[in-house]
Amino acid sequence: MTSPQPDALGDRSSASRNGSPQLREVPIGLSAEGTRTETDSLGAVEVPADRYWGAQTQRSLIHFSIGEDRMPKAVYHAYGHVKKAAARVNGRAGRLPRWKADLIERVADEVIAGKLDGHFPLYVWQTGSGTQSNMNVNEVISNRATQLAGGELGSKHPVHPNDDVNMGQSSNDTFPTAMHIAAVQAVHERLLPSVQSLQEAIAAKADLWAEVVKIGRTHLEDAVPLTVGQEWSGYAHQLAQAIDRVRASADGLYELAAGGTAVGTGLNAPPGFAEKIAAQIATQTSHPFVTAENKFAAQGGLDALVGASAGLRALAVPLMKIANDIRWLASGPRCGLGELVLPANEPGSSIMPGKVNPTQCEAMVMVCIQVMAEDSAIAFAGSQGNFELNAMRPLVINNFLHSAAVLSDACAKMLEYCIEGTELNRDQIDSYLTRSLMLVTALSPVIGYDNASNIAHKAQEEGTTLREAALASGYIGADDFDRIVDPAAMVGP
Amino acid sequence: MTSPQPDALGDRSSASRNGSPQLREVPIGLSAEGTRTETDSLGAVEVPADRYWGAQTQRSLIHFSIGEDRMPKAVYHAYGHVKKAAARVNGRAGRLPRWKADLIERVADEVIAGKLDGHFPLYVWQTGSGTQSNMNVNEVISNRATQLAGGELGSKHPVHPNDDVNMGQSSNDTFPTAMHIAAVQAVHERLLPSVQSLQEAIAAKADLWAEVVKIGRTHLEDAVPLTVGQEWSGYAHQLAQAIDRVRASADGLYELAAGGTAVGTGLNAPPGFAEKIAAQIATQTSHPFVTAENKFAAQGGLDALVGASAGLRALAVPLMKIANDIRWLASGPRCGLGELVLPANEPGSSIMPGKVNPTQCEAMVMVCIQVMAEDSAIAFAGSQGNFELNAMRPLVINNFLHSAAVLSDACAKMLEYCIEGTELNRDQIDSYLTRSLMLVTALSPVIGYDNASNIAHKAQEEGTTLREAALASGYIGADDFDRIVDPAAMVGP
Amino acid sequence: MTSPQPDALGDRSSASRNGSPQLREVPIGLSAEGTRTETDSLGAVEVPADRYWGAQTQRSLIHFSIGEDRMPKAVYHAYGHVKKAAARVNGRAGRLPRWKADLIERVADEVIAGKLDGHFPLYVWQTGSGTQSNMNVNEVISNRATQLAGGELGSKHPVHPNDDVNMGQSSNDTFPTAMHIAAVQAVHERLLPSVQSLQEAIAAKADLWAEVVKIGRTHLEDAVPLTVGQEWSGYAHQLAQAIDRVRASADGLYELAAGGTAVGTGLNAPPGFAEKIAAQIATQTSHPFVTAENKFAAQGGLDALVGASAGLRALAVPLMKIANDIRWLASGPRCGLGELVLPANEPGSSIMPGKVNPTQCEAMVMVCIQVMAEDSAIAFAGSQGNFELNAMRPLVINNFLHSAAVLSDACAKMLEYCIEGTELNRDQIDSYLTRSLMLVTALSPVIGYDNASNIAHKAQEEGTTLREAALASGYIGADDFDRIVDPAAMVGP
Amino acid sequence: MTSPQPDALGDRSSASRNGSPQLREVPIGLSAEGTRTETDSLGAVEVPADRYWGAQTQRSLIHFSIGEDRMPKAVYHAYGHVKKAAARVNGRAGRLPRWKADLIERVADEVIAGKLDGHFPLYVWQTGSGTQSNMNVNEVISNRATQLAGGELGSKHPVHPNDDVNMGQSSNDTFPTAMHIAAVQAVHERLLPSVQSLQEAIAAKADLWAEVVKIGRTHLEDAVPLTVGQEWSGYAHQLAQAIDRVRASADGLYELAAGGTAVGTGLNAPPGFAEKIAAQIATQTSHPFVTAENKFAAQGGLDALVGASAGLRALAVPLMKIANDIRWLASGPRCGLGELVLPANEPGSSIMPGKVNPTQCEAMVMVCIQVMAEDSAIAFAGSQGNFELNAMRPLVINNFLHSAAVLSDACAKMLEYCIEGTELNRDQIDSYLTRSLMLVTALSPVIGYDNASNIAHKAQEEGTTLREAALASGYIGADDFDRIVDPAAMVGP
Repeated sequence: MTSPQPDALGDRSSASRNGSPQLREVPIGLSAEGTRTETDSLGAVEVPADRYWGAQTQRSLIHFSIGEDRMPKAVYHAYGHVKKAAARVNGRAGRLPRWKADLIERVADEVIAGKLDGHFPLYVWQTGSGTQSNMNVNEVISNRATQLAGGELGSKHPVHPNDDVNMGQSSNDTFPTAMHIAAVQAVHERLLPSVQSLQEAIAAKADLWAEVVKIGRTHLEDAVPLTVGQEWSGYAHQLAQAIDRVRASADGLYELAAGGTAVGTGLNAPPGFAEKIAAQIATQTSHPFVTAENKFAAQGGLDALVGASAGLRALAVPLMKIANDIRWLASGPRCGLGELVLPANEPGSSIMPGKVNPTQCEAMVMVCIQVMAEDSAIAFAGSQGNFELNAMRPLVINNFLHSAAVLSDACAKMLEYCIEGTELNRDQIDSYLTRSLMLVTALSPVIGYDNASNIAHKAQEEGTTLREAALASGYIGADDFDRIVDPAAMVGP
Repeated sequence: MTSPQPDALGDRSSASRNGSPQLREVPIGLSAEGTRTETDSLGAVEVPADRYWGAQTQRSLIHFSIGEDRMPKAVYHAYGHVKKAAARVNGRAGRLPRWKADLIERVADEVIAGKLDGHFPLYVWQTGSGTQSNMNVNEVISNRATQLAGGELGSKHPVHPNDDVNMGQSSNDTFPTAMHIAAVQAVHERLLPSVQSLQEAIAAKADLWAEVVKIGRTHLEDAVPLTVGQEWSGYAHQLAQAIDRVRASADGLYELAAGGTAVGTGLNAPPGFAEKIAAQIATQTSHPFVTAENKFAAQGGLDALVGASAGLRALAVPLMKIANDIRWLASGPRCGLGELVLPANEPGSSIMPGKVNPTQCEAMVMVCIQVMAEDSAIAFAGSQGNFELNAMRPLVINNFLHSAAVLSDACAKMLEYCIEGTELNRDQIDSYLTRSLMLVTALSPVIGYDNASNIAHKAQEEGTTLREAALASGYIGADDFDRIVDPAAMVGP
Repeated sequence: MTSPQPDALGDRSSASRNGSPQLREVPIGLSAEGTRTETDSLGAVEVPADRYWGAQTQRSLIHFSIGEDRMPKAVYHAYGHVKKAAARVNGRAGRLPRWKADLIERVADEVIAGKLDGHFPLYVWQTGSGTQSNMNVNEVISNRATQLAGGELGSKHPVHPNDDVNMGQSSNDTFPTAMHIAAVQAVHERLLPSVQSLQEAIAAKADLWAEVVKIGRTHLEDAVPLTVGQEWSGYAHQLAQAIDRVRASADGLYELAAGGTAVGTGLNAPPGFAEKIAAQIATQTSHPFVTAENKFAAQGGLDALVGASAGLRALAVPLMKIANDIRWLASGPRCGLGELVLPANEPGSSIMPGKVNPTQCEAMVMVCIQVMAEDSAIAFAGSQGNFELNAMRPLVINNFLHSAAVLSDACAKMLEYCIEGTELNRDQIDSYLTRSLMLVTALSPVIGYDNASNIAHKAQEEGTTLREAALASGYIGADDFDRIVDPAAMVGP
Repeated sequence: MTSPQPDALGDRSSASRNGSPQLREVPIGLSAEGTRTETDSLGAVEVPADRYWGAQTQRSLIHFSIGEDRMPKAVYHAYGHVKKAAARVNGRAGRLPRWKADLIERVADEVIAGKLDGHFPLYVWQTGSGTQSNMNVNEVISNRATQLAGGELGSKHPVHPNDDVNMGQSSNDTFPTAMHIAAVQAVHERLLPSVQSLQEAIAAKADLWAEVVKIGRTHLEDAVPLTVGQEWSGYAHQLAQAIDRVRASADGLYELAAGGTAVGTGLNAPPGFAEKIAAQIATQTSHPFVTAENKFAAQGGLDALVGASAGLRALAVPLMKIANDIRWLASGPRCGLGELVLPANEPGSSIMPGKVNPTQCEAMVMVCIQVMAEDSAIAFAGSQGNFELNAMRPLVINNFLHSAAVLSDACAKMLEYCIEGTELNRDQIDSYLTRSLMLVTALSPVIGYDNASNIAHKAQEEGTTLREAALASGYIGADDFDRIVDPAAMVGP
């Protein structure tokens, strides 16, 4: 137990009555060896002496060493923004002495920049509110600030992890806030640019191949023709719409819970805190964050992230279709469809010499399946809140950031190592086109569906060309046939 | 095989050369017994003589009697709109004789009104394009129109199922179109009004109970207070946002594939057909349908429905949380949380006399799980398209309409039989409030987190009240305690 | 409220003190019109006069008209077995007068035979324990027995729904019991025979085509040869193993909760009741049911059904692969892989004359996706139990029976309308075989992977045959090439 | 391109004609800096000079840097077993010179022991066959063996990655083999012992608390009593059955694909290779591996892993229920159910002093949700095979090993930091017991369900005890009541 502090009922911003301490320019890092004693309300704990974290982080490290999954660093960087913004708002309001606010901001900037990443060791599978990661941030900032202020590590003076760094905050509002910040950054700064580039490259291919007529396929079966460009315009359009869906689905992430504190009422946060911290975070991150209209919804639910995750899925679904199409169209080289030729990035087989495989497509398909499964986990978790808290948060943010990351990278790799180098096998494309019986469809408005059907069946049964069967049928003459059954004329304007 | 028609190269709108037949006012129904011979391109098939359907429907009925799942009638009603709109557009363009267009429209109106429901017997598990259901509609309209025109059933004269009813259409563009129409109607005409009413009732409860202070709970554990109204405002807000998500997610459904025909190129449909049929459908249904910008995407993918399904899930997720909260808060009556009293709608147990259970909440939770699973099926199916067609369509529309329907009804029942009759157990609510130790949080800004923590631990260990422990600690006096630790003051403005 | 009965503390088996009533031979059915007043502990309710059900059923019908999903009739048939077995055990133990036990058994036999199906109208989305369906059975048996005994409908005399029909039972143990019975019957009597037949037909094709050498494909790309028979033996083996998994996964279903009553303690059931009723149900159904070793697990969890559902999924997964393989191998007829020719069961397109599609495969793929999603719902629900009851039961049994049913039927249809009529396109198969470059693999052990790779790449680049490239490489002579690169010798013993 | 080797048609085991080289005792590691040129059939690639890997690994590293997910090291350790066993079998058969076989075995032992972990850098999201990881192993063993033999790195002499290390193997059979080995080890060596310990601890608690009578709860509502020991016996039994399911579900993993080579025919592997390598792997690992009965099924499908994953899910489902029960029963401390007292491992809140939360339960619940989602990914992937290969393997093994790992650790942590320290709050348990109205159930067989129901309703309405209401009803006297309504007598024998 920590001993009672003598200044009860005084200003709780520790050391503030002494005025600003002299800050030292100490680089990040603790050169001590062995352990250091840190304390929390449950007592004392030994922590590694070269780490800034405190007792609660250490407890979590021991109690939750489950698998290898660490809370994504992006969550801590985002938390840095929360702590910086809170200090700014508290400082301006006079709740924190200005020097202390400045000091916390300074350390928060180190957090944001990733310079303290090595001091955030906790696992994903921890308390469902993310409290332990919040306390990890609070403790690290407290000790780093204390170091800079020349205080004693672990003393919580002059910067207290709860009273100062966490002032006006609860894990229950700040962890959701950090989740939203990290998610917005992942979507807007990483995912969307990557998908956009892929979309543009596919659209460029669609333009390039706008005039190449090919056989269409429905139910995997020969159908009427279209151009390669039309086919790829479908891919490009699916991705363009998916981008819109990702963006729209992520809109809910701009609402921040910060200011709701423990249960959404804002207890211990002053009036206006919620609006001010959101505005400050918006300024810091250049994303249009606002305070959540209803904090009880924001903290009791995870709906914004469930919605945003559906956006990721909306991308995975067409990407899987596109990747599958491309690998099928490139199948062969001699016993498959063989319409596309993909770049040979690597030998395809350890036993079959000379084999080239559609590996980028396979990686993409796997990524899409993974994203769809992680989306299920997020939705499931989203449904499991109780009362004033959904305590499934670490799972949700870990899956969301993972999905966004692998989609981003898979799109970038697919673009660079597959789409850009993909070429057409014109011979194969032309050969299919002339063989297909489904060109008969063009005759249908002229001789009727039933007669046209007879012709197609007969050609297939007798192994003749469509033209031969059509002329033999007597329903149509050679001139009309040649005029009407013109693939190039069948692909629309 | 049907015999060749003599009028090859002539107008394919059967019988048009004879001018308009005299229509007979025959009520819906066929009084014949036994079977009637119908034909398609594969030959002759016996169909029940009292049914309008033709050979292809009958084949499907035989080949796909899988389970009990029938294609939802709403799909056929929507298809009625498609056929009506196509006839209107074809008639105005002079492609169909006006009398024939009028006749098809007339029968399509019977389809829309559900009067021919008994003639649409097909299963969900059929061809993945829904072709068999399209042909079912084509055949029924053909035969019903033929009946009205005094023709011979099965003769396809004067109204041919393919050449006339299906003119300018393919299953590959019309089935997706019917899916979108049915889905829009389900969402906007049935689901949203139902959820809206539930949302308003919950919001009204939030207002009603705005001043009732209660203990908050996070991690299921006692937390700081809020009002019952605040708690319910969270539910109301979650639902309000879910309604927005449902609506936004369903926007993609307004884009119709009609006009793309077989592979998206619009082969056999005249220029402008796509725009005109969409406009016509919009007029008929009073929903703002437009033609899809890119038909290859619309037919090769299912992205709009995958997106709309995410909207249904976005509703299920908070509904599950709300239903769970309510049943927990009503748990007891004497050994649970007991803050709410739900209406006793039915005896709860066959063995335990007098038991009342939160049955509406249970039904809602099950519905939500089902919706989440059906959403997974839809996304999975959405990823499984190939080339110019996603052939998983019947599964998708069946799940979507089912999810929308059970959500609609579950919300309505929950409203009527649970929310409206829910009352507060004020004694229990008040009793918890005074007992909770977490009121100590209000002391934290005054005496510091660590001291406050000591007080709470001591009270719990010694079984005292918070006030007793606080005063014994010496950190705070009675007057300050009573002023600061005031639940009513802790719930915010 | 029902008025107090005068015989408190007397024998609770109503009417038993009067001895056996004279039974009347009344056929099933109630010819009355309008409504009849029935009562339960909440009061009086009007029910349709031509239905046997009572007040609780009627309440449920009103409160839970959610969607169209009705509790599967198979659950009621299984419940008939439970009620019959309970009456038998209670009668033999002297707890029920023998005549009353006999009467209940007699009516239970009518339930089992499906003769009372029209009297079980309830929805799936009801109380999570299935209590309302249990009471539906109790009420129907009570009234039907009362009818046979010449009593007054709704009087609960001489056969009381709770005291007699439900004697020694709770919904919490009997509904799980009925679920297991219905599930076992679905798996063993319907699903496994259907899959077995499909498996055998595929195995027969594997034998038939054991010698037909074809090109193998990995990553969709040309690979080394195998025989068609080997490929199909893979399908057959996957299904054989899936059958084993279905069977093994369903073993847990043999454990019955009956005897646990309300919370697993067996309150109000006499000692030995659990074992006796399980034995009796085993006798009645010819399945090796036993009493569950631990009733708290059996009632608080749904693990046996979650496990059995994984068995259904274990079938869906390879079925999807097989159906996909078959439709791909049959793709074409002229622009696809074209190795298989599927039966033309129906015209494939409303617009493309003569098109034949792999519709059975598509239906199967959709069924498999549905089964996988329903399995997810079951697992999710299985995780949502609380304390002495998992109250997600109707959802689970509905999904399970649905999955089993559609899998059963889809296998039967696939067998009859696809597998049996599938034939080989030998020309295409042979043509691919001679074209493939991957036959070079056979050279690898002789000339090394690197040299073999060079040959394959060169052949592909220069468009020559493998033989030409190999001989040109100088690594191997013509005789050695012809001896080693022999597809028939490459498929193993 | 590598230059043609002069010894075409000679023994392909490189360098064997020179006899055994003198091995050098070189510790693991390459002290070179910069890069080294390595080659494969596509040409030359620069690789880091301090790494053993070759050209194909380097290509993959560049082409597939997607996210942070690396192929689990356990897969490489398992692959070490495959390479060792293959070398042993090839050496004994005289296909590899004995010295070369010994050398490969020696390096494979280093792989197995994890000593070369730093040389296996590849990502999960790569080619779907795992070929790149297989080649990574082949290349590393080749270069490490070459180093030991005094050869030149990158020369592939005297140990060639394909011709020697991969002799008689393909990625298509060995990667599945390594997957099964790694999965079996994860399940049997790590997961099952962990779960077993948890199960035993829970069973011990059940014994400890066998006599403590408590109120039961169904539908979250008060029900009839049971003992705490009975409740926990349910948990213990669920886990015992889950352990059985895990074990049974994992049985299919004992079947190994090795020997099937590229497409399942065993091309380039000698007769008996499959059986011998499986036996050798069994010896090496002490697990009863055997050769898969049908290699086409083993390589075209992933059914064994889909099945094994269902086993993991079978564990996650009851674990989630148990974790939820425990956190609910421990809810409070003053405004929840409060029957259990969990150890206070860490401060629960950053803002609410003195709060203790059920954090182990929350971590467990999240782990269970994650496992269920990963299981969905595995099943989805399992359905996506084509022809002779399912190319979704890296995703599957990554998810499987992850699920097994987090389940293992979560069980261990739950045991140590939650179950062991859990205690009863006897006052609360006793208090609930005496309050509950559902004890009325015991009266039901005596006074009838309807009368009993009246008593319970009256007690609840009037706020009296059950005894008061019962005696007031006149249905039963005080002596009978006290004799019959005895909670201790209601929990069964």
